[in-house]
Amino acid sequence: MKQIEVCHSPALIPLYNTEGKIVVVIDIFRATSSICYGIENGALEIIPVATVAECAAYEGKGYLLAAERNGEVVEGFNFGNSPFSYTPEKVNGQKIVLTTTNGTHAIKSLQATKEIIIGSFLNLTAICNYLIAQNTDVLLLCSGWKDKFNLEDTLYAGAVAQQLIEAGYTPDDAAIGAETMYTVARPNMREYLKRSSHTIRLQELNIEDDIQFCLKTDIISTIPVIVDGKIVKKDLKIV
Amino acid sequence: MKQIEVCHSPALIPLYNTEGKIVVVIDIFRATSSICYGIENGALEIIPVATVAECAAYEGKGYLLAAERNGEVVEGFNFGNSPFSYTPEKVNGQKIVLTTTNGTHAIKSLQATKEIIIGSFLNLTAICNYLIAQNTDVLLLCSGWKDKFNLEDTLYAGAVAQQLIEAGYTPDDAAIGAETMYTVARPNMREYLKRSSHTIRLQELNIEDDIQFCLKTDIISTIPVIVDGKIVKKDLKIV
Repeated sequence: MKQIEVCHSPALIPLYNTEGKIVVVIDIFRATSSICYGIENGALEIIPVATVAECAAYEGKGYLLAAERNGEVVEGFNFGNSPFSYTPEKVNGQKIVLTTTNGTHAIKSLQATKEIIIGSFLNLTAICNYLIAQNTDVLLLCSGWKDKFNLEDTLYAGAVAQQLIEAGYTPDDAAIGAETMYTVARPNMREYLKRSSHTIRLQELNIEDDIQFCLKTDIISTIPVIVDGKIVKKDLKIV
Repeated sequence: MKQIEVCHSPALIPLYNTEGKIVVVIDIFRATSSICYGIENGALEIIPVATVAECAAYEGKGYLLAAERNGEVVEGFNFGNSPFSYTPEKVNGQKIVLTTTNGTHAIKSLQATKEIIIGSFLNLTAICNYLIAQNTDVLLLCSGWKDKFNLEDTLYAGAVAQQLIEAGYTPDDAAIGAETMYTVARPNMREYLKRSSHTIRLQELNIEDDIQFCLKTDIISTIPVIVDGKIVKKDLKIV
C-alpha cells in the first residue's frame, strides 16, 4: 500500500527518505500559491533560489526578479510573492527568479526524489488526481515559518492527505493529524486561521486580499514541477 | 499575555528560545507516563540519561536500571518504560536511572529554561493548574518518534493547550493545531490513535494494557520536576 507522509518543517527533511517519492512543496501564504498561479498564467519558468544575492545575480539577463523576506518585497526588486503579481498580464511568456523566506528554502532542502511538484489550494484536486495516478509514495513538505510548524501549510497537507487516504494511501501520524485539522477548519478556513500568529503577521502587512485568494480551491489545473532546478508546467499529455 | 507554544520534535528545539519558560516534556507512550507514575509511587529520583552505556555505568551503585529501545527492554536491564514497572511495590524508596528512545532524548535536548517538568495524561490537570499558577510562558515539548511528529504526544499537548488557552494564554500555530486534534480525539482517544503507526508498532509489542493505562486522565497529582539533572517530586508547599 502506498504511503503518504507529512513533514512539518524543512529542518526535519533529513529524517525522511525521499528517494523514489513524489514530494509536494507547500507554502500557502504565499510562495507556492503564487508559483502555481504564475505557471498557470503562462510564466515559462520560475527559478527558486535561496538568497537575495543569488536572485540579484540574474539582473539584466531577461528575468523578472522576485524577492520576499518576512512578508515584504525586498527593496529594489520587481516584485515579491503576492499572487496578484503573477497575473497573465505580468508573467505570460516571462522567466522569473524567486527567493522567499520559507518556500524556496523548503525546495532547496530537498535532495534525491522521484519528482518535486508545487502545491496550493488553487490546484488542490489537480494535484491529488495527479498523485493518485502516479501510484507512488508521497511526502508533503510544509515550508512552515522559519522552520516552525504553521497552520495554513498543515491545513493544505490535510486536504491532500484526505483525498489520498480516501484513495487507499496509508497516512503517517502527521498526515492523520493534518487531515483532522483540515476537516475541522474546512467549513471556514479563513475564520480558523484568524488565531494564527502568521496570519496576524500577514494582516499587519495589509494583504488580506492575498490571503483570501490563496485559500480559493480548485480554480486552476496546472501542476508545476521542478525540472533541472527550474519550476515549469508539467506536460500531462506525455506523462 | 502569556504564550503557549508546542514543539513537535526535539530536533526543532534549537529554534525556540526556552529561557525564562517552563518546558513540559511529553512522551506519552511511555516514558513520561511512567516517570509521573513512578514519582507518584515514591521513587526518590529518576535520572534521565541519553545512552544505554550511561545507564549501565550506574550498575552496583544502588539504582534500578531502566533501559528501553524501540519499545523493548534492553537485554540485561531491570526494566524498561512500562508503567506497570513503576508501581509502589517496585519503586517506592528507590532511585532509578532511565534511558529511552525518545523521552530522555527530548529532555537532553533542552538547555536554559526556567524549569523542566514532566507531563502525562495521568497528571494532566495537576500540570495545567501548576502552569497557570506560575503565570509564565510555556513550551510543550513532544518527544515524538525518532524526532518525527507523533500523534499521542500531540494530543496531550492539545489537552494542555486547551486548558491554558481557556486561562488566557496565547497559542502559537502548533498549539492551535494540537488543540483542534485533541478536541476531535477526546471522546475516544484510543480509537483515534488506532490509525497511528506508532500505536500499531506498540500493538505488535503486546502492550495494549500499557497504552490503555497511559491514556487514563487525572489519576495522580504529582508534578515531576528536573533538579540538577534528576527528576524528583515537586514540593508544591514551598512553591
